[in-house]
Amino acid sequence: MISVAVNGYGTIGKRVADAILKQPDMRLIGVAKTSPNYEAFIAHRKGIKIYVPQQSIKKFEESGIPVAGTIEDLVKASDIVVDTTPNGVGAQYKPIYQQFQRNAIFQGGEKAEVADISFSALCNYDEALGKKYIRVVSCNTTALLRTICTINKVTKVEKVRATIVRRAADQKEVKKGPINSLVPDPATVPSHHAKDVNSVIKNLDIVTMAVIAPTTLMHMHFINITLKDKVEKKDVLSVLENTPRIVLISSKYDAEATAELVEVARDLKRERNDIPEVMVFDDSVYVKDNEVMLMYAVHQESIVVPENVDAIRASTRLMSAEDSIRITNESLGILKGYLI
Amino acid sequence: MISVAVNGYGTIGKRVADAILKQPDMRLIGVAKTSPNYEAFIAHRKGIKIYVPQQSIKKFEESGIPVAGTIEDLVKASDIVVDTTPNGVGAQYKPIYQQFQRNAIFQGGEKAEVADISFSALCNYDEALGKKYIRVVSCNTTALLRTICTINKVTKVEKVRATIVRRAADQKEVKKGPINSLVPDPATVPSHHAKDVNSVIKNLDIVTMAVIAPTTLMHMHFINITLKDKVEKKDVLSVLENTPRIVLISSKYDAEATAELVEVARDLKRERNDIPEVMVFDDSVYVKDNEVMLMYAVHQESIVVPENVDAIRASTRLMSAEDSIRITNESLGILKGYLI
Repeated sequence: MISVAVNGYGTIGKRVADAILKQPDMRLIGVAKTSPNYEAFIAHRKGIKIYVPQQSIKKFEESGIPVAGTIEDLVKASDIVVDTTPNGVGAQYKPIYQQFQRNAIFQGGEKAEVADISFSALCNYDEALGKKYIRVVSCNTTALLRTICTINKVTKVEKVRATIVRRAADQKEVKKGPINSLVPDPATVPSHHAKDVNSVIKNLDIVTMAVIAPTTLMHMHFINITLKDKVEKKDVLSVLENTPRIVLISSKYDAEATAELVEVARDLKRERNDIPEVMVFDDSVYVKDNEVMLMYAVHQESIVVPENVDAIRASTRLMSAEDSIRITNESLGILKGYLI
Repeated sequence: MISVAVNGYGTIGKRVADAILKQPDMRLIGVAKTSPNYEAFIAHRKGIKIYVPQQSIKKFEESGIPVAGTIEDLVKASDIVVDTTPNGVGAQYKPIYQQFQRNAIFQGGEKAEVADISFSALCNYDEALGKKYIRVVSCNTTALLRTICTINKVTKVEKVRATIVRRAADQKEVKKGPINSLVPDPATVPSHHAKDVNSVIKNLDIVTMAVIAPTTLMHMHFINITLKDKVEKKDVLSVLENTPRIVLISSKYDAEATAELVEVARDLKRERNDIPEVMVFDDSVYVKDNEVMLMYAVHQESIVVPENVDAIRASTRLMSAEDSIRITNESLGILKGYLI
């Protein structure tokens, strides 16, 4: 039983904490939070212990949320820390993890240099075994890597060209824009996603372009993959259908817009209407000789949650890739094949 | 045990069907659906029997969804029908309910004349006892009526002036607009909501104005109530806090935007992130002499669900208002007091 701390309790942190509570081999020591907002109060109500920065103790106690200790106390009490603090803040916390000699999992908002390895469970779990600091790549990069490493099982992927249409903000982020514009991210090529994919698959020829669209629900990727050998469409569909963490959606059910995909998740009574799987439109899969094109949607709030759970096991050498991925998927209800 | 049919399986129908499955005194015979989309398939997967118009049988069977019978078969097999078909379509189905002498519950999208009575559980349950045709008023009118009838418990409500900022579409409705405009609904006074409130509280002096805003999550109401007598703010807050189907949200938890309220529902792991309660901002409650102003949010997808369940019991004289409302609330997890 490994003792896990979650530092940060926003979009990713609250989901990682919930996921750890469902693992048979993990114990959640507590979470660290800086402001006593509704997320903190709901965590408290669920019985999760809340640790806060020294200077925030008074603020939390005044709001009626008991404080279990400081962030340092939380780190000390745990075997490993999952850092889900905002972009760039994780690097600032790293000295604390080092001071107490604790392993740590960082998120894709940190620079790759923060960790010993950048991580995607379906691509490089074995390389991450025993690594003290692991960085789970961002939501978009996680989706690219899952897809590329899966198609790579059919025949070697030689080249990837992708367009990423990003959601502008998570639903709860009411102060972020744009509300009425498409924003190149950036208006130069490549976007950072290609470099981030290369932090996991070193020598892949990949170029990405990205744009921000005024929506909060999901990202969408439009991807063009060149393979070493000619392939058949049925072989591509088959590997996509048989890989957990990728699900297909059939056009016959009229659920293609991200709003409709989220409605499907609601109707399936998924917690928080999350879709941690890459969501491939089955009719979008186009194959011509050694070229594959396809479209999929990416639920930015939840897709990295299973990778964080696996990263904990890789870092602490708890078990093999196969066992970890299976247990993570089973405990979180993560599927393969057709979603409906 | 009363046998219930649900005709229509969209936003309201699927929620009413789920709610009926949770009632100890009701049995869901099946639902009627016209197109074999994801909602139909998920219903089938849950074991709900699906009835379709004669001309749609082939389309459903081709899509792999077994058909239990026609809509006429569904009506015949049930004691009462909840009609959740689109606005105005319910009136077209009424002759079928009459032909088989079945009681029916209609929605607020129908004209008031379709039914013997317009209904709001906290206002006029007793008047609806034994009525063959009951119309549950729309989401906005349900919220107005819940609030007015609750404040009326403090002292008599003499006058209501309200501004309704409506969501433009439900999240799944990807073809509706506007996406970048405020649309008066209509640019004359009063909006239809005042008349609809008067269909339940006959002689109330009420004037409403409405505008459509480009959002999908919830409506918001800004309401000004004149009372017969002077009141104290604490008495108003107390009655709001002690009435089930109304919940308060404290400003201290930083969850005021509709997006944040929905995030709270997600974090509370509510099914489909529904909030069937009227959601009052506690710090918005302003009292001066005999005048009360307040602001609240209305979850358009789910607020009428408990009223539909109660309307079934009123129509069939199953039990008293008090018992029905209590059982509906308990079975659906509908709260009173502070949400968090």
